[in-house]
Amino acid sequence: MYHHIKELMYTVKIGTPDVRFGRMLLEQFGGANGELAAAMQYTIQGWNCVDDIARRDLLLDIGTEELSHLEVVGALIRMHLKPLKTDAAAAEADPLVTIAGGGGVALLNSQGNPWTADYLKVTGELDVDLRSNIAAEARAKIVYERLIDHTDDPGTIDTLQFLMTREITHMRAFSAALESMEKPPFSIGRLAPTPVLVDQYFDGSTGDGNEGDQNMRGPWMTSNGLHVVESQMAGGKGLSVNKVRGVAGAEERGKQDSAQRTTTAPELEELVGVADSKV
Amino acid sequence: MYHHIKELMYTVKIGTPDVRFGRMLLEQFGGANGELAAAMQYTIQGWNCVDDIARRDLLLDIGTEELSHLEVVGALIRMHLKPLKTDAAAAEADPLVTIAGGGGVALLNSQGNPWTADYLKVTGELDVDLRSNIAAEARAKIVYERLIDHTDDPGTIDTLQFLMTREITHMRAFSAALESMEKPPFSIGRLAPTPVLVDQYFDGSTGDGNEGDQNMRGPWMTSNGLHVVESQMAGGKGLSVNKVRGVAGAEERGKQDSAQRTTTAPELEELVGVADSKV
Amino acid sequence: MYHHIKELMYTVKIGTPDVRFGRMLLEQFGGANGELAAAMQYTIQGWNCVDDIARRDLLLDIGTEELSHLEVVGALIRMHLKPLKTDAAAAEADPLVTIAGGGGVALLNSQGNPWTADYLKVTGELDVDLRSNIAAEARAKIVYERLIDHTDDPGTIDTLQFLMTREITHMRAFSAALESMEKPPFSIGRLAPTPVLVDQYFDGSTGDGNEGDQNMRGPWMTSNGLHVVESQMAGGKGLSVNKVRGVAGAEERGKQDSAQRTTTAPELEELVGVADSKV
Amino acid sequence: MYHHIKELMYTVKIGTPDVRFGRMLLEQFGGANGELAAAMQYTIQGWNCVDDIARRDLLLDIGTEELSHLEVVGALIRMHLKPLKTDAAAAEADPLVTIAGGGGVALLNSQGNPWTADYLKVTGELDVDLRSNIAAEARAKIVYERLIDHTDDPGTIDTLQFLMTREITHMRAFSAALESMEKPPFSIGRLAPTPVLVDQYFDGSTGDGNEGDQNMRGPWMTSNGLHVVESQMAGGKGLSVNKVRGVAGAEERGKQDSAQRTTTAPELEELVGVADSKV
Amino acid sequence: MYHHIKELMYTVKIGTPDVRFGRMLLEQFGGANGELAAAMQYTIQGWNCVDDIARRDLLLDIGTEELSHLEVVGALIRMHLKPLKTDAAAAEADPLVTIAGGGGVALLNSQGNPWTADYLKVTGELDVDLRSNIAAEARAKIVYERLIDHTDDPGTIDTLQFLMTREITHMRAFSAALESMEKPPFSIGRLAPTPVLVDQYFDGSTGDGNEGDQNMRGPWMTSNGLHVVESQMAGGKGLSVNKVRGVAGAEERGKQDSAQRTTTAPELEELVGVADSKV
Amino acid sequence: MYHHIKELMYTVKIGTPDVRFGRMLLEQFGGANGELAAAMQYTIQGWNCVDDIARRDLLLDIGTEELSHLEVVGALIRMHLKPLKTDAAAAEADPLVTIAGGGGVALLNSQGNPWTADYLKVTGELDVDLRSNIAAEARAKIVYERLIDHTDDPGTIDTLQFLMTREITHMRAFSAALESMEKPPFSIGRLAPTPVLVDQYFDGSTGDGNEGDQNMRGPWMTSNGLHVVESQMAGGKGLSVNKVRGVAGAEERGKQDSAQRTTTAPELEELVGVADSKV
Repeated sequence: MYHHIKELMYTVKIGTPDVRFGRMLLEQFGGANGELAAAMQYTIQGWNCVDDIARRDLLLDIGTEELSHLEVVGALIRMHLKPLKTDAAAAEADPLVTIAGGGGVALLNSQGNPWTADYLKVTGELDVDLRSNIAAEARAKIVYERLIDHTDDPGTIDTLQFLMTREITHMRAFSAALESMEKPPFSIGRLAPTPVLVDQYFDGSTGDGNEGDQNMRGPWMTSNGLHVVESQMAGGKGLSVNKVRGVAGAEERGKQDSAQRTTTAPELEELVGVADSKV
Repeated sequence: MYHHIKELMYTVKIGTPDVRFGRMLLEQFGGANGELAAAMQYTIQGWNCVDDIARRDLLLDIGTEELSHLEVVGALIRMHLKPLKTDAAAAEADPLVTIAGGGGVALLNSQGNPWTADYLKVTGELDVDLRSNIAAEARAKIVYERLIDHTDDPGTIDTLQFLMTREITHMRAFSAALESMEKPPFSIGRLAPTPVLVDQYFDGSTGDGNEGDQNMRGPWMTSNGLHVVESQMAGGKGLSVNKVRGVAGAEERGKQDSAQRTTTAPELEELVGVADSKV
Repeated sequence: MYHHIKELMYTVKIGTPDVRFGRMLLEQFGGANGELAAAMQYTIQGWNCVDDIARRDLLLDIGTEELSHLEVVGALIRMHLKPLKTDAAAAEADPLVTIAGGGGVALLNSQGNPWTADYLKVTGELDVDLRSNIAAEARAKIVYERLIDHTDDPGTIDTLQFLMTREITHMRAFSAALESMEKPPFSIGRLAPTPVLVDQYFDGSTGDGNEGDQNMRGPWMTSNGLHVVESQMAGGKGLSVNKVRGVAGAEERGKQDSAQRTTTAPELEELVGVADSKV
Repeated sequence: MYHHIKELMYTVKIGTPDVRFGRMLLEQFGGANGELAAAMQYTIQGWNCVDDIARRDLLLDIGTEELSHLEVVGALIRMHLKPLKTDAAAAEADPLVTIAGGGGVALLNSQGNPWTADYLKVTGELDVDLRSNIAAEARAKIVYERLIDHTDDPGTIDTLQFLMTREITHMRAFSAALESMEKPPFSIGRLAPTPVLVDQYFDGSTGDGNEGDQNMRGPWMTSNGLHVVESQMAGGKGLSVNKVRGVAGAEERGKQDSAQRTTTAPELEELVGVADSKV
Repeated sequence: MYHHIKELMYTVKIGTPDVRFGRMLLEQFGGANGELAAAMQYTIQGWNCVDDIARRDLLLDIGTEELSHLEVVGALIRMHLKPLKTDAAAAEADPLVTIAGGGGVALLNSQGNPWTADYLKVTGELDVDLRSNIAAEARAKIVYERLIDHTDDPGTIDTLQFLMTREITHMRAFSAALESMEKPPFSIGRLAPTPVLVDQYFDGSTGDGNEGDQNMRGPWMTSNGLHVVESQMAGGKGLSVNKVRGVAGAEERGKQDSAQRTTTAPELEELVGVADSKV
Repeated sequence: MYHHIKELMYTVKIGTPDVRFGRMLLEQFGGANGELAAAMQYTIQGWNCVDDIARRDLLLDIGTEELSHLEVVGALIRMHLKPLKTDAAAAEADPLVTIAGGGGVALLNSQGNPWTADYLKVTGELDVDLRSNIAAEARAKIVYERLIDHTDDPGTIDTLQFLMTREITHMRAFSAALESMEKPPFSIGRLAPTPVLVDQYFDGSTGDGNEGDQNMRGPWMTSNGLHVVESQMAGGKGLSVNKVRGVAGAEERGKQDSAQRTTTAPELEELVGVADSKV
């Protein structure tokens, strides 16, 4: 159950409204990495996370905070869009907001595209969802930073700095939640990858480019157990694809199956899943 | 420049076609975490990555491999959808593929939604993009695993196991590329978060729930420098929102600015960016 | 600012899960007339409604309640979808929810289409927005009623009856808010319609149809000041279109401009608007 | 069956073309509340309305007129966009219309988003659809009024005043059609809301806000049978949610079931519906 | 201006309704190649075609007929969907149509996706638009044919045969309109392609494939002035890309610029366009 | 299987970057008639074309070349967008590319709409797909030509002239592939249209228009076997709709069924299809 109190989580004060900047800010209201996307992604992950009620709480804590952020960024945008009601040239630059929306804030991104649930990444696999959330917070952080780069208004900067800071807080919390599951670093789900094949870094792009780039080497070809395999098209042997013989065994699960669960969660035996059914 | 050779990267052989399973497989052809999404996300990140031509090569290596995977999963789907041309009941279950598409593969997800670029996460900030890619590979891995759980056909399992394995390979490579940038773990971009505020874990969801959940604690509240702050609505003090005073300084950048760049990359001074313009 | 408490607004209890019904219920979670659409429509209208802080409160009261309803209907769906994790046939009938989403609830409608902000109707003109909300509540009511018609599970019916009842409550409140503005019934905005022309009901569809229908008459042709005008194509005189001579004067406003406003609302003189600029 | 005659329903004459205004006008051609949306919403409602052939005729009369309006607003836009073919700067401001569309009119809104059937509200419940139409006409009226505010061209104003006037005509007709059904004001469908619960106005947003707003009272809390219930989170008792005991009885139907129907309409006994199946 | 008469263009009579077939038929109502797409594509092309009022009339003749077809296919669908109101299992198979739409027809395709203007191909270049229309009619024909293959109901087949036949009529008319412009077969627009380069067929896909295919030859490599060029990646010389030196001259225009135009068409000199500005 | 070499298919060199032009160019990267749309349309048609492996090769040759074009146009856009990183005004004109995307290229069209598979036309009927491709190439050609008209930069013109030329090459090849199937010109699929009815050109738009157009005649009414039939609404006899009596026979197939097929293609008897099942 939700309750709303009228005080904003951060008090927004701006100097001179800047309609063009208000329009840019829409990216964090109704855009792909904006506050509604964050609120919905974490909240829905949380509602689905019936197998680990502690991390379910984490997801709802942060999902709810993002709703409060949506309200803050919405207030900031409204203040910047205020001249739309009286400035015809500004209005013509963004007719959708002005003519259709009356100059208010709307669930659009900075180019007027409507918000869509296609922005969300929700798989119902907790550690995977946490990785999606860490990446989402990193994206939101860089967008706020770029927005700060386009304004000189101190009150606006304060608000954006507040919102940007909280993304790092959330990134730390999601990372801690993932680490505390104590899973091996590349273990996902229940099925192990095929040995030998999983170690082969495939060099699918070769040659010298018009932009000064060429076939490069880096630690990503030799770390984490990897080694390079050249493409047949570049004269190499290609992937060892004749090594696949059904599933390759079960993954290490860490503490993934030992969490406290909700009363409506499926019984443990129902969750044995893929690895068992294939072995 | 691209070249296509007709041999598939993995030879697909199936037993009895299963139209319902073929439809499920569309999720990895034209779905949100499918092979076209992966190919486009990494390839476009690579084309944009003019400031680090080594990791640009990584992005193009893997982006190109995903195109080959798109072809493999497309061949697998086509074989499973083959009865659509002769089995009226199967056709009626999926009229869009049959009636509009003639029973072939199409850029739809498992529910017939058209593929959209809204699935992609491309920011142009290399370490952020790598985090998005790590999460994307984790999602693709779990989807392949769930698909394996819904078939008993050995040839189909082999193909899916091949594709699933490669996601882990890519996850390892993207992780190595991120680690080799030697950035502090929660450093994103150029602007530092606000001290004190960044350490506050906000407890926005409280109480006892109907599903047996209650207000929970976990290491995510006390790790990575965090401590709990109670919401005013639950009787707490709330966030220290009065501590924000403009930008808080510059972030540690690791080796982010020292990579070899393409001849068309902007000059370094053009890239100084946010932190400098605000200090 | 928002706070979440874990108790649901209505305690959901179901008997035997019914996956097909769970899928139908998605229409009220991520569908066009569902709870997120209602929550977002009213909340965003409220945030924009800076000229009438009393009705702004109304919009936020109900918008917040709809968020709590979203959580309730989400819990109901999750319980009905629970067999997806163990029942392969059910899973294959809805691969997007199962394979991509892990069997949890998602922001999709009953056919798997992602939620989009195109569902929302927000104009920033308060009385117009209230009419949109009255219609939205009527639509939501009829959808809940149809859902009740497709289940026999007593706990499910109780939950849906709760949600359905609240739509009528909201419809009453929005109607009262509109009436209390004391506007003439067909007065919208600031510009009056053109006399004579506005009274002409145009008979654009004529003849006898294959389904037993024919050219019909009804009170809608003669009420509210209207009279029938026959189309030229049916031998009539057509609309009096040569009577338009610019704007026709100002509309009666009722109590629309006398409400208490927020401190960030534009000054009154800024709002004089269309009628003044044209006269 | 449709027929087209080349004469426009309103003769469009403009002075100097204004490309920016032409782009704004697209909102009423291919936008959410534009003429195609109106034409399609009413026409499809009409085709589905086989149980009341008189109001079916109303829906087709107005749906057909909206098609003629689409043509009028299209002609107006084309005239304003004419300089796109020769003015490079104007073309660059709207490349989608110029480069892709050759400078003609297209089914886009004012920000270039393609028209989508998600804009439509069609439930097949006649009185609900009429409410949606009343709201749609109100929205279209206010958008035309805002457009008039952004032009000084007399011919353009005449055309928009014509179109705006007709929205009020339609609003009157739809209102008369709803009233003539003689339904109780808050009766929707066949199932009555739960007594007691339906009378409770829930105060979900409380406190004092940063924009000068506070917890407000208004007639919407005490009219139409309502009284206020305070949220538990604000120290109140909350909704009487333990009062729900299945469906609460049948709704008053007014004259809803006594209209003349088409020859293809289902028999009356087929339409008994929800209330009967639950009692 | 449009007028509607209630008689259908083709009288629809069906035997036993078939809900699954009704759902398939939606593809031609609200699908990518359906009747609304055809009506809108031709009508909007016609409204934009101010430079050739004879072919403008053609586009409006056929665009209007497609609106009448939309009505016919809508009536056919409604009759087949009729059992949705009384058959729960059928309703559950298509909840969007039943629960949200009340069992009526809607602007959805056969998988429930909303109609979008992204389906349309409108460039404003008449001969290009005619080619798009010829292809569109061919697609609609094959879809009707596939639908006929899925029903045995004589009345349904008659209706579909009527609609299918008209697509061939339209294909003939659009082809005649293109031919009568007397343009050289591969002349598009005003700019000629670069000599030598335009004659090179590039063999971008080589090798032997797993499905029995290999590098094939055909008349498309040697007709219409073409000859094969091997890719560098397959040991060939590649395209003669060093031959491009700006624009290559003007195209033959046939009778494209000599048609009678509307009074609102731009003057001829405004249309001189690309070739002139570059030479 | 795909391989990427870093050299571009055409070496892109530009003079002064032009951000507005870069944004227009996005139409050919992520727009409806752009290079990804072409690559995906032909490649997926090719993968599905198991019944004619020679034309399958054609589709893959050209589909692969379009991927290389996507890379070329992407490089061109990136160079033109380069100032976005340092020019605030340019950035504000396109916040989605700058703020969300970091100034790189993205799968958007020139108005910021995300690429969608709704752009594709894939039916699985080879001759129909070839017609769709001929039209697609014509559209792409005219868009490149319009782009050339908006730049004076010689290097940019060279690149666009290269890409434009190749569209004509592809148009020639697709036309040759269609002609070499030796099908009668208006034969589509397996079912013949109904005689008499198929010859009737229906005059659905009549009268004198406000833009100087009137009811026009042209060869499209009398060529290819057609003659004019006047609408009943204009006093004519209308279409001979009482002539439809089920399917009208089989179509001439040309060489459509005699091609060499892949090893995974269905057997010929499975493909007999509609005509046989109805006769």
